Amino acid sequence: MDNFLTILPNLITIQDVAPASTKDIEEAVSAINGDLGMLWMLLSGILVFFMQAGFTLVETGMTRSKNAANIAMKNLLDICVGSLTYWFVGYSLMYGTANDSGTFFWSGLMQGKGADLFFQTMFAATAATIVSGAIAGRTKYSTYVIFSIVMTALIYPIAGGWQWQGSGWLTELGFIDFAGSSIVHSVGGWAALVAAIMVGPRIGKFVDGKVFSIPGHNQVLATLGVFILWLGWFGFNGGSQLAWGGADAIGASNVILITNLAAAAGGLGALITTWIWYGKPNLPQTLNGALAGLVSITAGCGNMSAIGAVFAGLIGGIIVVFSIEFIEKKLKIDDAIGAASVHGVAGVWGTVVIGLWGINGDKGIGLFNGGGAEQLGVQALGSLAYAVWAVVLSFIVFKILKSTMGLRVTEEEEMVGLDLSEHGEIAYPGKRDRG
Amino acid sequence: MDNFLTILPNLITIQDVAPASTKDIEEAVSAINGDLGMLWMLLSGILVFFMQAGFTLVETGMTRSKNAANIAMKNLLDICVGSLTYWFVGYSLMYGTANDSGTFFWSGLMQGKGADLFFQTMFAATAATIVSGAIAGRTKYSTYVIFSIVMTALIYPIAGGWQWQGSGWLTELGFIDFAGSSIVHSVGGWAALVAAIMVGPRIGKFVDGKVFSIPGHNQVLATLGVFILWLGWFGFNGGSQLAWGGADAIGASNVILITNLAAAAGGLGALITTWIWYGKPNLPQTLNGALAGLVSITAGCGNMSAIGAVFAGLIGGIIVVFSIEFIEKKLKIDDAIGAASVHGVAGVWGTVVIGLWGINGDKGIGLFNGGGAEQLGVQALGSLAYAVWAVVLSFIVFKILKSTMGLRVTEEEEMVGLDLSEHGEIAYPGKRDRG
Amino acid sequence: MDNFLTILPNLITIQDVAPASTKDIEEAVSAINGDLGMLWMLLSGILVFFMQAGFTLVETGMTRSKNAANIAMKNLLDICVGSLTYWFVGYSLMYGTANDSGTFFWSGLMQGKGADLFFQTMFAATAATIVSGAIAGRTKYSTYVIFSIVMTALIYPIAGGWQWQGSGWLTELGFIDFAGSSIVHSVGGWAALVAAIMVGPRIGKFVDGKVFSIPGHNQVLATLGVFILWLGWFGFNGGSQLAWGGADAIGASNVILITNLAAAAGGLGALITTWIWYGKPNLPQTLNGALAGLVSITAGCGNMSAIGAVFAGLIGGIIVVFSIEFIEKKLKIDDAIGAASVHGVAGVWGTVVIGLWGINGDKGIGLFNGGGAEQLGVQALGSLAYAVWAVVLSFIVFKILKSTMGLRVTEEEEMVGLDLSEHGEIAYPGKRDRG
Repeated sequence: MDNFLTILPNLITIQDVAPASTKDIEEAVSAINGDLGMLWMLLSGILVFFMQAGFTLVETGMTRSKNAANIAMKNLLDICVGSLTYWFVGYSLMYGTANDSGTFFWSGLMQGKGADLFFQTMFAATAATIVSGAIAGRTKYSTYVIFSIVMTALIYPIAGGWQWQGSGWLTELGFIDFAGSSIVHSVGGWAALVAAIMVGPRIGKFVDGKVFSIPGHNQVLATLGVFILWLGWFGFNGGSQLAWGGADAIGASNVILITNLAAAAGGLGALITTWIWYGKPNLPQTLNGALAGLVSITAGCGNMSAIGAVFAGLIGGIIVVFSIEFIEKKLKIDDAIGAASVHGVAGVWGTVVIGLWGINGDKGIGLFNGGGAEQLGVQALGSLAYAVWAVVLSFIVFKILKSTMGLRVTEEEEMVGLDLSEHGEIAYPGKRDRG
Repeated sequence: MDNFLTILPNLITIQDVAPASTKDIEEAVSAINGDLGMLWMLLSGILVFFMQAGFTLVETGMTRSKNAANIAMKNLLDICVGSLTYWFVGYSLMYGTANDSGTFFWSGLMQGKGADLFFQTMFAATAATIVSGAIAGRTKYSTYVIFSIVMTALIYPIAGGWQWQGSGWLTELGFIDFAGSSIVHSVGGWAALVAAIMVGPRIGKFVDGKVFSIPGHNQVLATLGVFILWLGWFGFNGGSQLAWGGADAIGASNVILITNLAAAAGGLGALITTWIWYGKPNLPQTLNGALAGLVSITAGCGNMSAIGAVFAGLIGGIIVVFSIEFIEKKLKIDDAIGAASVHGVAGVWGTVVIGLWGINGDKGIGLFNGGGAEQLGVQALGSLAYAVWAVVLSFIVFKILKSTMGLRVTEEEEMVGLDLSEHGEIAYPGKRDRG
Repeated sequence: MDNFLTILPNLITIQDVAPASTKDIEEAVSAINGDLGMLWMLLSGILVFFMQAGFTLVETGMTRSKNAANIAMKNLLDICVGSLTYWFVGYSLMYGTANDSGTFFWSGLMQGKGADLFFQTMFAATAATIVSGAIAGRTKYSTYVIFSIVMTALIYPIAGGWQWQGSGWLTELGFIDFAGSSIVHSVGGWAALVAAIMVGPRIGKFVDGKVFSIPGHNQVLATLGVFILWLGWFGFNGGSQLAWGGADAIGASNVILITNLAAAAGGLGALITTWIWYGKPNLPQTLNGALAGLVSITAGCGNMSAIGAVFAGLIGGIIVVFSIEFIEKKLKIDDAIGAASVHGVAGVWGTVVIGLWGINGDKGIGLFNGGGAEQLGVQALGSLAYAVWAVVLSFIVFKILKSTMGLRVTEEEEMVGLDLSEHGEIAYPGKRDRG
């Protein structure tokens, strides 16, 4: 017994070297996962930022050279204005004051919310940029400036809050829109449609009831733009996991894998459709198909099987071809780059398809995989709500702009091109080279 | 003694707060390293995806404007078809069923294998894309579609399995090809050579035994393409570490550093070679040199000293200039962008150089650094095996295609350009602008 | 008592399962943070590498088509030469032998320093590239080769050591330049100004005291270039945190957020300034404004509030417009792309503004936020030191080059264009298409 009493102090000493409990480990792991989450959101936000370059190339490449500088100026404006307005107003409006962006505002410290604000800012800028291409070639730059401010400061943030604020009314209903098929893309797409209608068609687009094609000036830049958008979309969808570590790492991996499958299927869908319908595989439509495939999986990339994602994208890529033809030929609306079809129509499809063959883990939640019709109803309702919001708000904004500063440049300015008339220069001044 | 008995419960209590063992920490660390590995592979896969844009720009920039849209359509097809076929067939074929891509197929859950499938998919698409440039300007689009499917579903996956499946026959022999100088690049390069021979030269390339240069139409886009490829290569080589954390983090860092040194040396090698040989430093060849430098270090980026990497790249950049001239002027083969030299010849060099001055940690394994001739023999054998496989398989595929649907467009279609004849449009429709 | 003695062994057994101390956890966490830091620096370095593509596009787009291939060759040279010289000489010169790049040199192992060398290499290449645009259109390629070597091997590394070596004399004084407004950008900018003066203006720029505009040939590529530079800057500034994990993760997030705000404000500043001054919002100046906004926050991105960053960028974007006009119209210096204004002038502003409203955590260190004038004095001194160093060193280098190999091509060569005269080819050989 005595020799035990002599070793007892050692026992106690051993206890005294701050022994670690499993709880200590859990705390260390969760701190590291927090840092990993910030890294993932920052990197994703950087990828989404690059989408602005992709939009610029797609929009300039698919429209005429005399308006290329004007489109570049609109896309630059979207990221410049969007970054400031969303930080200043939009973010708090969308997520509530809990994010203390006020503190950030004055001190530059957001206690870990910096990555989130950066990531969300890029989404706001994207929503605005979708509109710029649709109204290319005839819209006043000054008018676009106002719209871009309202879009990033009010229209998008309020719509986003319905679902992503955490306890929005659509969230309560069980609405699913993982990365924004409806919240970002259809809101942008429907605003683009309203804008295209109110600004009116470009001169020479519709003459004596006939529809004339106004081809873009650089399909190679448009293709590069689509590759950049596809690249950025990995951040757009993957980053929407909002975290990394454990289940989130596996989740984000599947999101990116599924996003790529849907984009590939969308491109093929449009390629095959045009090969059959036009007789030859068409490049601009294949590009639109890949984008439509991406939009079609943006809502469901966390709730779709691989095969489900392939069909969501494939059908999205087929729909977009018919939608573009329908809006141009039947509705006689001049959406210069098909933004309403790529982002609006495919956005609705991507939202609704979750109600058709979506999954939740291994459980089917869609009409065709034993989930019943409830989810489908909620998805349809959500799509409708965003469509109504985008149409009404953008109509009011453009209506006010029309009756005040006006929407269109003069006929002469349009013929000369917006580069010269709105910016006093041209995008390709080769002819003016001296010596 | 009694007072000891009174403190005893406390002792035991302390034990009861789930004390952590070092094993608990090891488990936590390995879980985090698993998540880090997924992050690294996903990010690397995203960079490799972007290489498709780089290939598109290099191939369009180095060929004529009348075929630019056709090349864009081929590169889009490669990523669209490759993403679907490799997921559907190729991955299981290459790595065996162990990867339960079946489970993934139906449920969308790959239990952490999603990042790997995504990363490997981009490699398959790359192997196919290498071929598209070599046969630019005269090949039927429909024919290319079939080849692209076979390449990503069969030719590449089977070849890849020899080494990367883990217990392939080349792995057993001690063959080293870290990121695919042979497995991806030389397989693509030799297939490109066979394709160029069987499709035959472009009209006007070889007339009365004379060789005419058919310059590309946009060297700036070609340069941007090379920068994008160089960027993507950091993911191509770095991601092939397949993990992050501890030794893997240091390993991947060195891989990327060494990859950059070899690319830089390759560019300089070609720049200096053309300055001496042509009298002026040549841009297209310098671009090829940088790419050759990258291909030259792709196999050895995990088994090369910094100085060894510089010489591997430098020599690769010199070789490629002579190889391109030899294949064009002496062999009279019309490889439109030098794909066989950049990917095939440099791919073999990059594989063999490991046997000359490769290292394994600090130990020399090459002929010139005390490693004997054994590794050199194995590297040569592996290079040969991949060359034979690629040549035989692609010969069979193109032979069948030639005797069925045919390989070439008609002479009229070629003169008009594949953009108009195969896709019914042109890449730069500026002339057709209305108003 | 006996039954206690029977359970005693178990107690001791429990102790024997290698119980973990909190110190074990701390060690594990710091190892993981080390790996995270490497990941962040590698990814940041990859982003900074991509800036070379951005510079290439901005410089070619803003100058004439007949010199586009020459500019591409200069930018390729900078990354090729810079990667080799900085690894071979510059890095050791800048950080001292402690980095055992010697060991790395021979064995390819840098014990975790690989990511740092890679990241720092890209900074050296950037400093050189800034100069290439300013002297576009008339400088001998051979002369530029020598300058590029000296810049990356000596001029930049020595300047960098003053602050980033850890115990440099400016560090001792309390100088703040987080990511290099002065160290990288103003050094490059002042060297560019000296080069532009010594090489002299392009033919046709200044005729009979009149100033003629020589517009660039592709504003769309220039815009893409600026988006790529903006993208790369997230790595340039964010990576300068040099670590990830805990406070560093939050710090880097704020750096990137603030960098984006300053870039956006800079673009808007120039856009509005030109709208008022020129009467129309100007694209090239808006592009310069965004870049100036980025340069203006590069020094202070770790010591600025969000609102402070916005004003730093906004003023930077306004200054750059006036600076470009002043250097061109008043000083009659032909800086072909405004490099001296964008990198030199904005670089000084970005360094000095820390002394005006910089913060350190929550504490103001600037003149206008209660920090007194001390920091302002140190910032001014540092800016001056870098300006003097860059001006003197580059003057000496160009003076020697002028009196030996000469700086300019002949008048005939300049008229023909450097693509043809220096490289024997043109960037857009469409006209020479055969068939």
